[in-house]
Amino acid sequence: MRPNPVPDIVIGRLPLYLRALGQMKAEGNTVTSSHELAGRLGISSAQIRKDLSQFGEFGKQGTGYNIAFLREQIQRILGVDRTWDVALIGLGDLGRALAHYGGFLRRGFQICALYDTDPEKIGQSIRDMPIQSMETMAADIRRKNIKIAMLAVPLSAAQEVVDELVGAGVVAILNYAPTSITVPEGVHVQQIDPALHLQHMTYYIKPD
Amino acid sequence: MRPNPVPDIVIGRLPLYLRALGQMKAEGNTVTSSHELAGRLGISSAQIRKDLSQFGEFGKQGTGYNIAFLREQIQRILGVDRTWDVALIGLGDLGRALAHYGGFLRRGFQICALYDTDPEKIGQSIRDMPIQSMETMAADIRRKNIKIAMLAVPLSAAQEVVDELVGAGVVAILNYAPTSITVPEGVHVQQIDPALHLQHMTYYIKPD
Repeated sequence: MRPNPVPDIVIGRLPLYLRALGQMKAEGNTVTSSHELAGRLGISSAQIRKDLSQFGEFGKQGTGYNIAFLREQIQRILGVDRTWDVALIGLGDLGRALAHYGGFLRRGFQICALYDTDPEKIGQSIRDMPIQSMETMAADIRRKNIKIAMLAVPLSAAQEVVDELVGAGVVAILNYAPTSITVPEGVHVQQIDPALHLQHMTYYIKPD
Repeated sequence: MRPNPVPDIVIGRLPLYLRALGQMKAEGNTVTSSHELAGRLGISSAQIRKDLSQFGEFGKQGTGYNIAFLREQIQRILGVDRTWDVALIGLGDLGRALAHYGGFLRRGFQICALYDTDPEKIGQSIRDMPIQSMETMAADIRRKNIKIAMLAVPLSAAQEVVDELVGAGVVAILNYAPTSITVPEGVHVQQIDPALHLQHMTYYIKPD
Protein backbone atom coordinates (compact mmCIF):
# COMPACT_ATOMS: atom_id res chain seq x y z
CA MET A 1 0.00 0.00 0.00
CA ARG A 2 1.13 3.55 -0.69
CA PRO A 3 1.13 5.64 2.51
CA ASN A 4 -0.46 8.78 1.03
CA PRO A 5 -2.26 7.85 -2.14
CA VAL A 6 -2.28 10.58 -4.77
CA PRO A 7 -5.79 11.27 -6.12
CA ASP A 8 -6.52 9.41 -9.34
CA ILE A 9 -7.46 12.66 -11.10
CA VAL A 10 -3.88 13.89 -10.49
CA ILE A 11 -2.43 10.65 -11.87
CA GLY A 12 -4.61 11.13 -14.93
CA ARG A 13 -3.02 14.52 -15.65
CA LEU A 14 0.59 13.29 -15.46
CA PRO A 15 0.43 11.68 -18.95
CA LEU A 16 -0.70 15.06 -20.32
CA TYR A 17 2.31 16.76 -18.76
CA LEU A 18 4.56 14.02 -20.08
CA ARG A 19 3.19 14.35 -23.61
CA ALA A 20 3.68 18.12 -23.61
CA LEU A 21 7.24 17.75 -22.28
CA GLY A 22 8.01 15.26 -25.04
CA GLN A 23 6.79 17.74 -27.62
CA MET A 24 8.82 20.56 -26.08
CA LYS A 25 11.90 18.34 -26.17
CA ALA A 26 11.21 17.45 -29.81
CA GLU A 27 10.98 21.17 -30.55
CA GLY A 28 14.49 21.59 -29.15
CA ASN A 29 13.62 23.28 -25.87
CA THR A 30 15.49 22.51 -22.65
CA VAL A 31 13.65 24.54 -20.01
CA THR A 32 9.98 25.23 -19.37
CA SER A 33 7.71 26.65 -16.69
CA SER A 34 4.36 25.83 -15.16
CA HIS A 35 3.03 28.88 -17.04
CA GLU A 36 4.19 27.57 -20.41
CA LEU A 37 2.76 24.12 -19.67
CA ALA A 38 -0.47 25.80 -18.57
CA GLY A 39 -0.73 27.65 -21.87
CA ARG A 40 -0.30 24.46 -23.85
CA LEU A 41 -2.63 22.31 -21.77
CA GLY A 42 -5.43 24.60 -20.71
CA ILE A 43 -4.73 23.67 -17.08
CA SER A 44 -3.87 26.41 -14.57
CA SER A 45 -0.21 26.83 -13.66
CA ALA A 46 -1.14 26.59 -9.97
CA GLN A 47 -2.77 23.21 -10.59
CA ILE A 48 0.30 21.96 -12.47
CA ARG A 49 2.66 23.06 -9.68
CA LYS A 50 0.41 21.48 -7.06
CA ASP A 51 0.16 18.21 -9.00
CA LEU A 52 3.92 17.94 -9.48
CA SER A 53 4.67 18.88 -5.87
CA GLN A 54 2.91 15.69 -4.75
CA PHE A 55 5.88 13.76 -6.10
CA GLY A 56 8.81 15.96 -5.12
CA GLU A 57 10.68 19.13 -6.00
CA PHE A 58 11.26 19.21 -9.75
CA GLY A 59 11.96 22.88 -10.40
CA LYS A 60 13.38 25.97 -8.74
CA GLN A 61 11.39 29.13 -8.12
CA GLY A 62 12.25 31.53 -10.92
CA THR A 63 14.26 29.15 -13.10
CA GLY A 64 11.51 26.74 -14.12
CA TYR A 65 11.78 23.06 -14.97
CA ASN A 66 14.52 21.25 -16.84
CA ILE A 67 12.49 19.48 -19.52
CA ALA A 68 14.63 16.34 -19.83
CA PHE A 69 14.81 15.89 -16.07
CA LEU A 70 11.12 16.47 -15.41
CA ARG A 71 10.23 14.16 -18.28
CA GLU A 72 12.39 11.38 -16.87
CA GLN A 73 10.87 11.83 -13.43
CA ILE A 74 7.30 11.62 -14.71
CA GLN A 75 8.19 8.61 -16.84
CA ARG A 76 9.51 6.94 -13.71
CA ILE A 77 6.45 7.89 -11.64
CA LEU A 78 4.09 6.51 -14.30
CA GLY A 79 6.20 3.42 -14.83
CA VAL A 80 6.93 4.18 -18.50
CA ASP A 81 10.70 4.43 -18.04
CA ARG A 82 10.53 0.94 -19.59
CA THR A 83 8.60 -0.64 -22.46
CA TRP A 84 5.45 -2.63 -21.71
CA ASP A 85 4.33 -5.49 -23.90
CA VAL A 86 0.71 -5.11 -24.99
CA ALA A 87 -1.67 -7.67 -26.47
CA LEU A 88 -4.24 -6.47 -29.01
CA ILE A 89 -7.45 -8.46 -29.35
CA GLY A 90 -9.74 -7.91 -32.33
CA LEU A 91 -8.34 -7.01 -35.74
CA GLY A 92 -11.30 -5.27 -37.34
CA ASP A 93 -10.90 -1.78 -38.82
CA LEU A 94 -10.09 -0.22 -35.47
CA GLY A 95 -7.80 -3.00 -34.30
CA ARG A 96 -5.87 -2.80 -37.54
CA ALA A 97 -5.49 0.96 -37.18
CA LEU A 98 -4.12 0.43 -33.65
CA ALA A 99 -1.75 -2.31 -34.84
CA HIS A 100 -0.40 0.01 -37.53
CA TYR A 101 -0.10 3.06 -35.28
CA GLY A 102 3.54 3.96 -34.81
CA GLY A 103 3.18 6.20 -31.76
CA PHE A 104 3.09 3.70 -28.91
CA LEU A 105 6.75 2.73 -28.63
CA ARG A 106 8.16 6.13 -27.77
CA ARG A 107 5.53 6.40 -25.02
CA GLY A 108 6.33 3.11 -23.32
CA PHE A 109 4.27 0.48 -25.12
CA GLN A 110 4.84 -2.17 -27.74
CA ILE A 111 2.06 -4.20 -29.25
CA CYS A 112 3.64 -7.64 -29.32
CA ALA A 113 0.74 -10.07 -29.86
CA LEU A 114 -2.43 -10.00 -32.00
CA TYR A 115 -5.49 -12.22 -31.59
CA ASP A 116 -8.73 -12.66 -33.48
CA THR A 117 -11.40 -15.33 -33.98
CA ASP A 118 -11.78 -14.94 -37.74
CA PRO A 119 -10.16 -17.89 -39.60
CA GLU A 120 -9.57 -15.59 -42.57
CA LYS A 121 -7.47 -13.26 -40.43
CA ILE A 122 -5.60 -15.84 -38.36
CA GLY A 123 -2.17 -16.37 -39.88
CA GLN A 124 -2.08 -12.98 -41.61
CA SER A 125 0.60 -10.59 -40.38
CA ILE A 126 0.59 -6.93 -39.46
CA ARG A 127 3.99 -5.29 -38.95
CA ASP A 128 5.55 -8.75 -39.01
CA MET A 129 3.30 -9.94 -36.19
CA PRO A 130 1.09 -12.92 -36.94
CA ILE A 131 -2.58 -12.72 -36.02
CA GLN A 132 -3.12 -15.67 -33.69
CA SER A 133 -6.21 -17.62 -32.76
CA MET A 134 -8.13 -16.60 -29.66
CA GLU A 135 -8.11 -20.26 -28.69
CA THR A 136 -4.43 -20.05 -27.82
CA MET A 137 -4.63 -16.50 -26.46
CA ALA A 138 -4.77 -17.16 -22.73
CA ALA A 139 -1.88 -19.63 -22.73
CA ASP A 140 0.19 -17.38 -24.96
CA ILE A 141 -0.38 -14.26 -22.84
CA ARG A 142 0.47 -16.15 -19.69
CA ARG A 143 3.64 -17.59 -21.21
CA LYS A 144 4.76 -14.16 -22.46
CA ASN A 145 3.83 -12.57 -19.12
CA ILE A 146 1.82 -9.83 -20.86
CA LYS A 147 0.08 -7.56 -18.33
CA ILE A 148 -1.68 -5.05 -20.62
CA ALA A 149 -4.31 -5.63 -23.30
CA MET A 150 -6.19 -3.46 -25.79
CA LEU A 151 -9.64 -4.80 -26.51
CA ALA A 152 -11.14 -4.01 -29.93
CA VAL A 153 -13.69 -6.82 -30.15
CA PRO A 154 -17.45 -6.49 -30.74
CA LEU A 155 -19.62 -5.56 -27.77
CA SER A 156 -21.13 -9.04 -27.58
CA ALA A 157 -17.74 -10.71 -27.10
CA ALA A 158 -16.17 -8.19 -24.75
CA GLN A 159 -16.92 -9.62 -21.29
CA GLU A 160 -15.98 -13.17 -22.24
CA VAL A 161 -12.64 -12.04 -23.63
CA VAL A 162 -12.03 -9.86 -20.58
CA ASP A 163 -12.60 -12.83 -18.28
CA GLU A 164 -10.04 -14.84 -20.27
CA LEU A 165 -7.53 -12.00 -20.21
CA VAL A 166 -7.87 -11.54 -16.46
CA GLY A 167 -7.52 -15.27 -15.97
CA ALA A 168 -4.31 -15.14 -17.97
CA GLY A 169 -2.81 -12.48 -15.72
CA VAL A 170 -3.68 -9.24 -17.52
CA VAL A 171 -4.10 -6.38 -15.03
CA ALA A 172 -4.74 -3.37 -17.28
CA ILE A 173 -7.27 -3.26 -20.12
CA LEU A 174 -7.90 -0.47 -22.59
CA ASN A 175 -11.45 -1.22 -23.68
CA TYR A 176 -12.58 -0.05 -27.13
CA ALA A 177 -15.72 -2.21 -27.09
CA PRO A 178 -18.69 0.12 -26.55
CA THR A 179 -19.82 -1.51 -23.31
CA SER A 180 -18.89 -1.49 -19.65
CA ILE A 181 -16.92 -4.53 -18.57
CA THR A 182 -16.65 -6.10 -15.13
CA VAL A 183 -13.26 -6.95 -13.66
CA PRO A 184 -12.08 -8.10 -10.24
CA GLU A 185 -10.42 -5.78 -7.74
CA GLY A 186 -6.88 -4.95 -8.77
CA VAL A 187 -7.54 -5.00 -12.51
CA HIS A 188 -7.60 -1.56 -14.15
CA VAL A 189 -9.84 -0.57 -17.05
CA GLN A 190 -9.89 2.53 -19.18
CA GLN A 191 -12.60 2.99 -21.77
CA ILE A 192 -12.43 4.58 -25.20
CA ASP A 193 -15.82 5.07 -26.82
CA PRO A 194 -16.09 8.08 -29.13
CA ALA A 195 -19.89 8.30 -28.83
CA LEU A 196 -19.54 8.74 -25.05
CA HIS A 197 -17.24 11.69 -25.58
CA LEU A 198 -19.46 13.21 -28.24
CA GLN A 199 -22.54 12.92 -26.01
CA HIS A 200 -20.65 14.60 -23.20
CA MET A 201 -20.10 17.61 -25.47
CA THR A 202 -23.59 17.81 -26.94
CA TYR A 203 -24.91 18.50 -23.44
CA TYR A 204 -23.18 21.85 -23.65
CA ILE A 205 -23.92 22.75 -27.26
CA LYS A 206 -27.54 21.64 -27.61
CA PRO A 207 -29.98 24.46 -28.25
CA ASP A 208 -31.73 25.39 -24.98
CA MET B 1 -26.60 30.64 -18.44
CA ARG B 2 -27.95 27.68 -16.50
CA PRO B 3 -29.03 28.73 -13.01
CA ASN B 4 -27.52 25.76 -11.15
CA PRO B 5 -24.86 24.20 -13.31
CA VAL B 6 -24.51 20.45 -12.87
CA PRO B 7 -20.86 19.41 -12.28
CA ASP B 8 -19.12 18.31 -15.47
CA ILE B 9 -18.17 15.00 -13.88
CA VAL B 10 -21.89 14.21 -13.51
CA ILE B 11 -22.54 15.14 -17.15
CA GLY B 12 -19.72 12.80 -18.11
CA ARG B 13 -21.47 9.86 -16.44
CA LEU B 14 -24.82 10.37 -18.18
CA PRO B 15 -23.58 8.85 -21.48
CA LEU B 16 -22.53 5.74 -19.50
CA TYR B 17 -26.04 5.43 -18.05
CA LEU B 18 -27.53 5.97 -21.50
CA ARG B 19 -25.35 3.30 -23.04
CA ALA B 20 -26.26 0.76 -20.35
CA LEU B 21 -29.98 1.57 -20.74
CA GLY B 22 -29.70 1.07 -24.50
CA GLN B 23 -28.15 -2.35 -23.92
CA MET B 24 -30.84 -3.30 -21.39
CA LYS B 25 -33.51 -2.27 -23.89
CA ALA B 26 -31.81 -4.32 -26.62
CA GLU B 27 -31.85 -7.28 -24.24
CA GLY B 28 -35.62 -6.94 -23.97
CA ASN B 29 -35.83 -5.49 -20.48
CA THR B 30 -38.36 -2.81 -19.55
CA VAL B 31 -37.52 -1.95 -15.93
CA THR B 32 -34.24 -1.48 -14.08
CA SER B 33 -32.92 -0.15 -10.78
CA SER B 34 -30.00 1.91 -9.59
CA HIS B 35 -28.61 -1.33 -8.14
CA GLU B 36 -28.70 -3.12 -11.49
CA LEU B 37 -27.11 -0.13 -13.24
CA ALA B 38 -24.48 -0.02 -10.49
CA GLY B 39 -23.61 -3.67 -11.05
CA ARG B 40 -23.12 -3.09 -14.78
CA LEU B 41 -21.18 0.13 -14.49
CA GLY B 42 -19.04 -0.25 -11.41
CA ILE B 43 -20.53 3.00 -10.06
CA SER B 44 -22.32 2.96 -6.69
CA SER B 45 -26.12 2.94 -6.77
CA ALA B 46 -26.14 5.94 -4.42
CA GLN B 47 -24.03 7.89 -6.91
CA ILE B 48 -26.34 6.95 -9.77
CA ARG B 49 -29.45 8.03 -7.86
CA LYS B 50 -27.77 11.28 -6.86
CA ASP B 51 -26.66 12.01 -10.41
CA LEU B 52 -30.10 11.39 -11.88
CA SER B 53 -31.86 13.37 -9.14
CA GLN B 54 -30.10 16.50 -10.38
CA PHE B 55 -32.38 16.41 -13.41
CA GLY B 56 -35.71 15.35 -11.93
CA GLU B 57 -37.64 12.39 -10.59
CA PHE B 58 -37.24 9.47 -12.98
CA GLY B 59 -38.18 6.51 -10.82
CA LYS B 60 -40.32 5.55 -7.88
CA GLN B 61 -38.95 4.18 -4.63
CA GLY B 62 -39.34 0.42 -4.79
CA THR B 63 -40.42 0.13 -8.43
CA GLY B 64 -37.23 1.24 -10.13
CA TYR B 65 -36.83 2.99 -13.47
CA ASN B 66 -38.77 2.47 -16.67
CA ILE B 67 -35.92 1.88 -19.12
CA ALA B 68 -37.52 3.44 -22.19
CA PHE B 69 -38.62 6.53 -20.26
CA LEU B 70 -35.30 7.08 -18.48
CA ARG B 71 -33.45 6.55 -21.73
CA GLU B 72 -35.56 9.17 -23.50
CA GLN B 73 -35.04 11.62 -20.67
CA ILE B 74 -31.25 11.23 -20.68
CA GLN B 75 -31.20 11.50 -24.46
CA ARG B 76 -33.08 14.78 -24.13
CA ILE B 77 -30.78 16.06 -21.36
CA LEU B 78 -27.67 15.26 -23.42
CA GLY B 79 -29.20 16.65 -26.60
CA VAL B 80 -29.04 13.34 -28.46
CA ASP B 81 -32.80 13.07 -28.97
CA ARG B 82 -31.82 14.23 -32.47
CA THR B 83 -29.05 13.34 -34.92
CA TRP B 84 -25.99 15.59 -35.12
CA ASP B 85 -24.00 15.97 -38.32
CA VAL B 86 -20.30 15.34 -37.77
CA ALA B 87 -17.33 16.20 -39.98
CA LEU B 88 -14.36 13.82 -39.98
CA ILE B 89 -10.97 15.26 -40.84
CA GLY B 90 -8.07 12.96 -41.67
CA LEU B 91 -8.63 9.66 -43.47
CA GLY B 92 -5.60 7.67 -42.40
CA ASP B 93 -6.02 4.24 -40.81
CA LEU B 94 -7.83 5.60 -37.78
CA GLY B 95 -10.01 8.04 -39.73
CA ARG B 96 -11.05 5.25 -42.07
CA ALA B 97 -11.94 3.01 -39.14
CA LEU B 98 -14.10 5.82 -37.72
CA ALA B 99 -15.75 6.45 -41.09
CA HIS B 100 -16.63 2.76 -41.38
CA TYR B 101 -17.84 2.41 -37.80
CA GLY B 102 -21.56 1.71 -37.76
CA GLY B 103 -22.28 2.55 -34.14
CA PHE B 104 -22.62 6.34 -34.24
CA LEU B 105 -26.08 6.77 -35.73
CA ARG B 106 -28.07 5.01 -33.02
CA ARG B 107 -26.29 7.19 -30.46
CA GLY B 108 -27.11 10.50 -32.07
CA PHE B 109 -24.34 11.14 -34.60
CA GLN B 110 -23.90 10.86 -38.34
CA ILE B 111 -20.60 11.40 -40.07
CA CYS B 112 -21.68 13.44 -43.07
CA ALA B 113 -18.49 14.97 -44.47
CA LEU B 114 -14.91 13.70 -44.91
CA TYR B 115 -11.81 15.83 -45.52
CA ASP B 116 -8.16 15.09 -46.19
CA THR B 117 -5.17 16.81 -47.78
CA ASP B 118 -3.86 13.80 -49.72
CA PRO B 119 -4.58 14.16 -53.47
CA GLU B 120 -4.66 10.36 -53.74
CA LYS B 121 -7.50 10.17 -51.22
CA ILE B 122 -9.53 13.18 -52.35
CA GLY B 123 -12.36 11.99 -54.58
CA GLN B 124 -12.40 8.46 -53.15
CA SER B 125 -15.57 7.51 -51.31
CA ILE B 126 -16.24 5.77 -47.99
CA ARG B 127 -19.81 4.65 -47.36
CA ASP B 128 -20.88 6.70 -50.37
CA MET B 129 -19.31 9.85 -48.94
CA PRO B 130 -16.65 11.52 -51.05
CA ILE B 131 -13.39 12.51 -49.39
CA GLN B 132 -13.12 16.24 -50.00
CA SER B 133 -10.17 18.60 -50.09
CA MET B 134 -9.25 20.46 -46.92
CA GLU B 135 -9.08 23.59 -49.05
CA THR B 136 -12.85 23.66 -49.31
CA MET B 137 -13.45 22.35 -45.78
CA ALA B 138 -14.20 25.59 -43.94
CA ALA B 139 -16.67 26.87 -46.52
CA ASP B 140 -18.35 23.47 -46.75
CA ILE B 141 -18.71 23.08 -42.98
CA ARG B 142 -20.11 26.56 -42.66
CA ARG B 143 -22.58 26.01 -45.48
CA LYS B 144 -23.76 22.70 -44.00
CA ASN B 145 -23.91 24.25 -40.51
CA ILE B 146 -21.87 21.38 -39.02
CA LYS B 147 -21.13 21.97 -35.33
CA ILE B 148 -19.15 18.84 -34.43
CA ALA B 149 -15.86 17.53 -35.83
CA MET B 150 -13.69 14.47 -35.26
CA LEU B 151 -10.02 15.23 -35.81
CA ALA B 152 -7.80 12.35 -36.93
CA VAL B 153 -4.97 14.32 -38.50
CA PRO B 154 -1.25 14.11 -37.65
CA LEU B 155 -0.03 15.98 -34.58
CA SER B 156 1.77 18.58 -36.65
CA ALA B 157 -1.40 19.63 -38.48
CA ALA B 158 -3.81 19.54 -35.56
CA GLN B 159 -3.82 23.14 -34.29
CA GLU B 160 -4.04 24.65 -37.76
CA VAL B 161 -7.03 22.48 -38.65
CA VAL B 162 -8.66 23.26 -35.30
CA ASP B 163 -8.35 26.98 -35.96
CA GLU B 164 -10.05 26.51 -39.32
CA LEU B 165 -12.82 24.39 -37.84
CA VAL B 166 -13.51 26.92 -35.10
CA GLY B 167 -13.53 29.69 -37.66
CA ALA B 168 -16.11 27.73 -39.63
CA GLY B 169 -18.45 27.49 -36.64
CA VAL B 170 -17.53 24.13 -35.11
CA VAL B 171 -18.11 24.16 -31.34
CA ALA B 172 -17.27 20.57 -30.33
CA ILE B 173 -14.13 18.69 -31.34
CA LEU B 174 -13.22 15.09 -30.62
CA ASN B 175 -9.44 15.20 -30.92
CA TYR B 176 -7.61 12.00 -31.89
CA ALA B 177 -4.35 13.82 -32.66
CA PRO B 178 -1.91 13.04 -29.82
CA THR B 179 -1.48 16.65 -28.76
CA SER B 180 -3.32 19.26 -26.73
CA ILE B 181 -5.12 21.83 -28.84
CA THR B 182 -6.07 25.38 -27.96
CA VAL B 183 -9.60 26.63 -28.56
CA PRO B 184 -11.47 29.79 -27.63
CA GLU B 185 -13.99 29.94 -24.78
CA GLY B 186 -17.23 28.22 -25.72
CA VAL B 187 -15.61 25.53 -27.88
CA HIS B 188 -15.54 22.05 -26.31
CA VAL B 189 -12.77 19.53 -26.79
CA GLN B 190 -12.54 15.91 -25.76
CA GLN B 191 -9.33 14.01 -26.32
CA ILE B 192 -8.80 10.38 -27.29
CA ASP B 193 -5.19 9.24 -27.05
CA PRO B 194 -4.70 5.58 -26.16
CA ALA B 195 -1.16 6.11 -24.84
CA LEU B 196 -2.51 8.60 -22.27
CA HIS B 197 -4.94 6.00 -20.98
CA LEU B 198 -2.31 3.29 -20.91
CA GLN B 199 0.11 5.51 -18.97
CA HIS B 200 -2.62 6.27 -16.48
CA MET B 201 -2.94 2.54 -15.78
CA THR B 202 0.78 1.73 -15.63
CA TYR B 203 1.06 4.04 -12.62
CA TYR B 204 -0.95 1.47 -10.69
CA ILE B 205 0.60 -1.71 -12.06
CA LYS B 206 4.28 -0.81 -12.17
CA PRO B 207 6.45 -2.85 -9.85
CA ASP B 208 7.16 -0.86 -6.67
